[in-house]
Amino acid sequence: MHTNIIGLIAGTLTTISFLPQVMKILKTRHARDISLGMYVVLAIGMIVWLIYGVMIKELPIMVANGIALVFCLFIIAMKLKYRKRG
Amino acid sequence: MHTNIIGLIAGTLTTISFLPQVMKILKTRHARDISLGMYVVLAIGMIVWLIYGVMIKELPIMVANGIALVFCLFIIAMKLKYRKRG
Repeated sequence: MHTNIIGLIAGTLTTISFLPQVMKILKTRHARDISLGMYVVLAIGMIVWLIYGVMIKELPIMVANGIALVFCLFIIAMKLKYRKRG
Repeated sequence: MHTNIIGLIAGTLTTISFLPQVMKILKTRHARDISLGMYVVLAIGMIVWLIYGVMIKELPIMVANGIALVFCLFIIAMKLKYRKRG
């Protein structure tokens, strides 16, 4: 049970970590220095982590990657939106 | 055993995902749009994932987070280095 708590802390941290980046892009309306390649590969990786979490029945891995994937896709969308702006 | 393979694919993807960002910063020498807060929280989260991986004895979680942590710290270092450059 206490491994689940450690996992949930880890998952919460890595999941909320994307929020400052989301806020920064929304605030500045700039994403020039952000790598699209990073977030595309990261999103695919998170989908595979999600499958892995289901396979080993570890809830923290499923929840963390599921939510982080949403943030990741949002950053990709904003990167594409502000692409022409440089 | 095959869960380990899925985990290793997931870990490889999320770990190498940081490489395009590292290369982009090295190439452009710009990191203005990158959120320092994101990478600081992400680095702390990866340390907790590493502890979690050791606790549940899952090698993919340990390896993936260990290597990704190095990339993460490197991006933090470059963000701080190019901070004045905007």
